[in-house]
This record gives sequence, structure tokens and C-alpha cells, in this order.
Amino acid sequence: MELFEKKLNSRQIFDGVVVKLFVDDIELPNGKKSIREIVRHPGAVCVIPVDEDENVIMIKQFRYPFSEVLLEIPAGKLEPNEDPLEAVKRELEEESGVNAESVEYIGTMYTTVAILDEKIHMYLATGLTYKNAHPDDGEFLEVVKIPLKTLVEMVMDGKIPDSKTQIAILKAEKILAERKNKVIK
Amino acid sequence: MELFEKKLNSRQIFDGVVVKLFVDDIELPNGKKSIREIVRHPGAVCVIPVDEDENVIMIKQFRYPFSEVLLEIPAGKLEPNEDPLEAVKRELEEESGVNAESVEYIGTMYTTVAILDEKIHMYLATGLTYKNAHPDDGEFLEVVKIPLKTLVEMVMDGKIPDSKTQIAILKAEKILAERKNKVIK
Repeated sequence: MELFEKKLNSRQIFDGVVVKLFVDDIELPNGKKSIREIVRHPGAVCVIPVDEDENVIMIKQFRYPFSEVLLEIPAGKLEPNEDPLEAVKRELEEESGVNAESVEYIGTMYTTVAILDEKIHMYLATGLTYKNAHPDDGEFLEVVKIPLKTLVEMVMDGKIPDSKTQIAILKAEKILAERKNKVIK
Repeated sequence: MELFEKKLNSRQIFDGVVVKLFVDDIELPNGKKSIREIVRHPGAVCVIPVDEDENVIMIKQFRYPFSEVLLEIPAGKLEPNEDPLEAVKRELEEESGVNAESVEYIGTMYTTVAILDEKIHMYLATGLTYKNAHPDDGEFLEVVKIPLKTLVEMVMDGKIPDSKTQIAILKAEKILAERKNKVIK
């Protein structure tokens, strides 16, 4: 089946500090016309820092769209042309106040595919050395340390709404369990 | 630490078919002023339909913001005041062409917490009876059946970018494994 949608025309509605908004006229696979509202975003990185005792460094932060304080892994948006790995190392040090011996890529997520082009590149950080967090000016957050096992239970019980945090916790659990398995064998 | 951000003023930039965009003036916890760009969305539902042989009914769909065909679980946005469970049953029948004996809630995800207020309510459907899919007019999709085990490997290998699909696959695997464990005991 033909699935491709063809762009006919694009109109920029808003050019903001973080997001840009476009309304595009498109042609559907059956030749009919339709529109798409698209939010464009520079992309972001996130990282799950897990220490030797399988504790995770988490961030509590007020999230304005929900008026809620959420429990999340460290993350930040990409600067133009910034290398994701460099961005991760920066966020790790600024937000969670740790150095990591190993920072490995564990996949990318598209946050919400119908309306937004944001990609979040995900990393696992291990071999942690604790230092002091020093968030950006205008960034207000609390750093907390929680066992990975507890976080997995919280995800399964629906107690961690943030999507990147849910994925990173479930992936980290599987990756680390598989490594331990290999060592035991 | 005080984390709350206070709304001072809200200006609506765009009122679309799917999204609304606002720029709000806010006061940070330290009393300084800043702005927040917020996209508002009616919310959505998604469902992972798993049959008796642990195959999952998946959807292939062109996603305009990325110009890519993505592999996803069935999903759809909520109509105003629509009950999420009713919406799931509708999407399940329309998009994937199955009836389900059991549709259970497995948690909610916030897609991208800094800029968007979208919540996706997630469900697991089991006890499937196959019928015929009949997507909405203007909705072009392909239905495919893939073993849950394969999908878990694809998520771990970074081959399924869509966030709701990653979460639903990893959660469904854990939920179903735990149930089998209980039966065996």
C-alpha cells in the first residue's frame, strides 16, 4: 500500500526560542488534500546514570505544561550542531553532578510522532564519581538517588509518567541484567 | 527547594485542528521572569494487542514530521470528553481489526514534558478475535503481525523509534512473563 504523504506547501506560524510551528498542505496517498500541523524542535539527549550499587541519579523538576513536579532522568535539549554525546556529558555534570567512566548510546526515541519531530538520543552512564551539581541559571531541580529496582516497580505501577524516563529505566534494567548473566556464565 | 513556576500571563499564538500553541510569561522560583512555549493537545490512547501465541498486531504508518514510515502499536487521539477506554476499543477495531476479550490499563505516559501537555493512556489487549480493519477516511496504514519476542529485540536494538511503542512492548513483556510465572508456580 502507498503510504507516502506529499508536501504541497508549508506555512510557518511561529518561530520561538524552543519550538517552531508549521501548517503544511499535503496530498494524501489517495490524491486528496489535507493539512498537517507540525511542531519542530532541535532534539534532545537524556541519560540514565547508574552507580555500582545500581542506584540511579534522578532529577525532580517542575514541568510547566502539567503544573507538576516530575521525577526524570537527566536530560537537555541539543544546541544547534551539537554532538549528542558532548551534550550528554554536559547535562550529566551540570544536572546530576557526576562524572562517568562509560557513557554508551542505548537508542533514540521519537517523543510523539504525529505532530512533533523531536528525537531524544538516549544514553546509559556507568562508573560514576560523585561531584556537585551546578544547574544552569534559571534551572531549578532537586537531585535524588533511587535504586533501579524501585524505579522499575514505579514504572510498572504507572508512577513515572515521563516517557524518556520510562524507556531508559526498562532498557537499563534489561541491559544490566544481561551483563550480569554473562559474567555469571 | 522551591520548584514551582508561577504563570503571570498567557498568550495564544495558534488554535489548530490538533494543537494549540501558547507563550506564557512566568515567574521562576527565584523571582526572575522567563517565558514558556507550550503546545497543548487533547491527549491520546494507545493499545498493544497481543494474541494467544504472543504475536502483536502492529501498524505501519507514514509519519509526516519525520517523512518516515514507522512501526507502531495502534493509537489515536482523544475526542473532547471521550472516555479513554471507549477510544481504545474504537481504535483497536478500526486500525487493527480485532476484538479483544480483555482491555486493561497499563499506565499513562507524558510524551515530552518540557513543551507539550499531551498524555497518552496505555492499554494491553488480550483474548483477540481477528476481523477486518477499517481505518478512518484519510488514514493510510498497513497492519502487520510480529512476535512480541522479536519486538522486544527490536526495541533493545534501537529499531523502533516511537516512544509509546517502546514503552508498551517492554511493559507487555514484563506483565505477560510475570503472569506465566504465576501460572507455573
